[in-house]
Amino acid sequence: METIKVIVAGPRGKMGSEALNMIQREQHLSLAACIDRENDGINVKDIHGLPDLDALIYTDAEACLNEVEADVLIDLTTPDNGYIHTKLALNNGVRPVVGTTGFTQEQLQELTSLAEEKQLGTVIAPNFAIGAVLMMQFSKWAAKHFPDVEIIEKHHDQKLDAPSGTAVKTAELIKEVRNPHHQGHKDEKETLPGARGADEEGMRIHSMRLPGLVAHQEVVFGGLGETLTIKHDSIHRESFMSGVKLAVEKAVELDTLVYGLEHLLD
Amino acid sequence: METIKVIVAGPRGKMGSEALNMIQREQHLSLAACIDRENDGINVKDIHGLPDLDALIYTDAEACLNEVEADVLIDLTTPDNGYIHTKLALNNGVRPVVGTTGFTQEQLQELTSLAEEKQLGTVIAPNFAIGAVLMMQFSKWAAKHFPDVEIIEKHHDQKLDAPSGTAVKTAELIKEVRNPHHQGHKDEKETLPGARGADEEGMRIHSMRLPGLVAHQEVVFGGLGETLTIKHDSIHRESFMSGVKLAVEKAVELDTLVYGLEHLLD
Amino acid sequence: METIKVIVAGPRGKMGSEALNMIQREQHLSLAACIDRENDGINVKDIHGLPDLDALIYTDAEACLNEVEADVLIDLTTPDNGYIHTKLALNNGVRPVVGTTGFTQEQLQELTSLAEEKQLGTVIAPNFAIGAVLMMQFSKWAAKHFPDVEIIEKHHDQKLDAPSGTAVKTAELIKEVRNPHHQGHKDEKETLPGARGADEEGMRIHSMRLPGLVAHQEVVFGGLGETLTIKHDSIHRESFMSGVKLAVEKAVELDTLVYGLEHLLD
Amino acid sequence: METIKVIVAGPRGKMGSEALNMIQREQHLSLAACIDRENDGINVKDIHGLPDLDALIYTDAEACLNEVEADVLIDLTTPDNGYIHTKLALNNGVRPVVGTTGFTQEQLQELTSLAEEKQLGTVIAPNFAIGAVLMMQFSKWAAKHFPDVEIIEKHHDQKLDAPSGTAVKTAELIKEVRNPHHQGHKDEKETLPGARGADEEGMRIHSMRLPGLVAHQEVVFGGLGETLTIKHDSIHRESFMSGVKLAVEKAVELDTLVYGLEHLLD
Repeated sequence: METIKVIVAGPRGKMGSEALNMIQREQHLSLAACIDRENDGINVKDIHGLPDLDALIYTDAEACLNEVEADVLIDLTTPDNGYIHTKLALNNGVRPVVGTTGFTQEQLQELTSLAEEKQLGTVIAPNFAIGAVLMMQFSKWAAKHFPDVEIIEKHHDQKLDAPSGTAVKTAELIKEVRNPHHQGHKDEKETLPGARGADEEGMRIHSMRLPGLVAHQEVVFGGLGETLTIKHDSIHRESFMSGVKLAVEKAVELDTLVYGLEHLLD
Repeated sequence: METIKVIVAGPRGKMGSEALNMIQREQHLSLAACIDRENDGINVKDIHGLPDLDALIYTDAEACLNEVEADVLIDLTTPDNGYIHTKLALNNGVRPVVGTTGFTQEQLQELTSLAEEKQLGTVIAPNFAIGAVLMMQFSKWAAKHFPDVEIIEKHHDQKLDAPSGTAVKTAELIKEVRNPHHQGHKDEKETLPGARGADEEGMRIHSMRLPGLVAHQEVVFGGLGETLTIKHDSIHRESFMSGVKLAVEKAVELDTLVYGLEHLLD
Repeated sequence: METIKVIVAGPRGKMGSEALNMIQREQHLSLAACIDRENDGINVKDIHGLPDLDALIYTDAEACLNEVEADVLIDLTTPDNGYIHTKLALNNGVRPVVGTTGFTQEQLQELTSLAEEKQLGTVIAPNFAIGAVLMMQFSKWAAKHFPDVEIIEKHHDQKLDAPSGTAVKTAELIKEVRNPHHQGHKDEKETLPGARGADEEGMRIHSMRLPGLVAHQEVVFGGLGETLTIKHDSIHRESFMSGVKLAVEKAVELDTLVYGLEHLLD
Repeated sequence: METIKVIVAGPRGKMGSEALNMIQREQHLSLAACIDRENDGINVKDIHGLPDLDALIYTDAEACLNEVEADVLIDLTTPDNGYIHTKLALNNGVRPVVGTTGFTQEQLQELTSLAEEKQLGTVIAPNFAIGAVLMMQFSKWAAKHFPDVEIIEKHHDQKLDAPSGTAVKTAELIKEVRNPHHQGHKDEKETLPGARGADEEGMRIHSMRLPGLVAHQEVVFGGLGETLTIKHDSIHRESFMSGVKLAVEKAVELDTLVYGLEHLLD
């Protein structure tokens, strides 16, 4: 496999620094440059806490994408910056791999057209954890045959929202193939309110929050005499990097924009 | 071990018939007689669907306990009948083993005094599933060291109440050793109501109902960097019989009334 | 949906009697006749222990398939009988649904040709538990992205073989997409022999046998910072009937032979 | 609660640095000094990577324990150093809390006598993870009532030994209360060698090794119609610190040596 030259935006962020680690681990990837708000003109290997990679940091994204010879841009920053960087990349012949849930429909349409015009593979994904994406795809498939399903997601006790975004997304995918219907006994009653969890078209979602947990989800399907469970446990954000790596490898083969990692997981 | 002669009340009930199966399996137990609402004077082995055990059926409980030479009465009927049978047994020198949650405090006190007066071992228990009772005891113990705990119980979708009696009982035992406190982030919010389950002094209880499930419970304790889970899965009511057998064996050794199987599980 | 008229072979067997229960539950299925080794000419509803269904029993399979107007034959008997019945069915315009692992390649080819010639939908499947079949399909898919995988299967302690047929089949499906490689540390050592389980091209398979278990399997995939688990729990053989029902419904739509339930689970 | 003044040996080690973090978190603990092989006379807060705690580092353990006013020594170094430090601590009126599996019987007896002579509470423990210790205690208890048990432990794929030390220790505790007996069907056979795991007096132990796992164990007990599972998941070594904190608090109340955290977990 030929070496793929990568620019990373946000190298000091939680995700960006994992991307640098991943590039260091993988022999067929090399770091071409970084885009950062600080440290203009400094080499990555000279920044304390960053891996020993020989590449310049640019604070000017346009200059970086214009001057540096690169195949792919990895952007794991914010929706605003991600949108600007993606356009700059496409206009400079660099294929974008972007992790975000924040692009509007208009932005996605514009970027899809631009990628097609430039014939540059582009991957935009709300979730790069292959395990989580497979869990959701399997759940959607299983729900065709098991219409009774409950979701239990478990996270550390510093999480603010319940249920988690992944649980909500899973329920949405299931709803595409499942007819709404009440689950449980038709006369069931809660002697303690909330015991039966959140109700999403009859499906139940439960959120556990405890210290010692990180990010876990079980999707449980019940049928006559059997249950089928799809379970994902994520204990470190490095779990997102196998999906980023896959997206980088696919971006150089594609010539259009793909939204969602699931379309790369045949 | 000497053979223990047992009278079973309610031999055609779900639990009573399991008690007969258990007596048939265990060499040191023998069936002395049965108390039933029907079939007076008929032999158990002549009733279709009952095991091949040679013992007479009585519809008159008093006559049965008066005339039949027996060591122990197993009563898995109703609170009303159970109370009457227990008194009759004690007054006739037979040690009662009774499964019920329905005795009043007054009834329990009266039976405790009577058992003491007669010096007859008596076991009354709301739950004879050793696994479930151990789960509750372990949970109470663990809660001393892990004050953050959530319970998820899972049952078949024909169950009416949520949460289950076992979940409520587990929470009560934990409350004896745990100070009430909010769990999860202090600013957490439910974007779907009920997601965080029922709130019991800050502890959360979740109830799953699906076909293919029978009766399951997990008690999950969270601490810094670790979780401890106590899990019980019951798939058949024969799971209650190991506790009944233990109670029968202990009743012949005791000379007072014991309430709750946990006091026999050292 | 039009009513589908079904002949059941082996109505008193464990699987056959579940098939009768299923036909009784489902409004769009009706029982046309049964093929049995005994009880020639007797009505099903007159046999003790069978459901209240009005249909004649034939001991002569040829006569049954010749005389009775039916759409589908459900055969859950033995490979030898299943083979004979399948040929008779196809020659009499009845669509066979057969549960067996025992047909030879020659038999399968012959039946495939016959089904095609007669243009009769035919479903032959080694496993009708939809949950188990989905578990295997998901596992094969996941293994493309997670080459490190272990299987733990858990069964009741009366099972003779370890590992289970389902575990072996799952490993075979995974092997189709996974390159053989050693798992675990290259210098790992067993201080107790057998601890690391059975080795199947580097994949590890573990078999647990305990009372209180029925039939369970977990397939665990590990990647950087995450694990993905596919879990199937079967507690009753009625779990096979949703797959039989699906096969019956598909057989009347098809005009060729399909081997394996997975091809009906899109 | 009065502040407890603590000396930490090995402050730059994996465990020692977690101990410093714990002292920083806990208001009733203060750091009095550190014993280290390097950095003599430097303040902890001036060492890069250590927490902002104001305490001097000594390379001379004897001088440290002689000169510094402290209540407790936390030693999470090596058996050799731990032994020397423990004796020095006891001879200087400081109560030792030591994490090690490496002391000989002779050393333990000598230290027990010395602690008793000096009337100084001392805690020596092979495992400070409260969750793991409770799992083992619960398992020993459960085994009295469920003699059929299997252990499955799951660790990251860089672990060298199988089974884990915790699994072996759990089996040893169970063996104290369980009579050796074959588990599974008496005629069971392994069609793939190793499938049934390691055999320890009939108990089976299984070791899973995958990336994405950290340190996990399940102890599964089976009885008629039910299973009881004790499960511990540890994802970070900070999980050991709640046990160290408990040991520090108990050491100041005790006047003898206690071996094993389980004796502090009533």
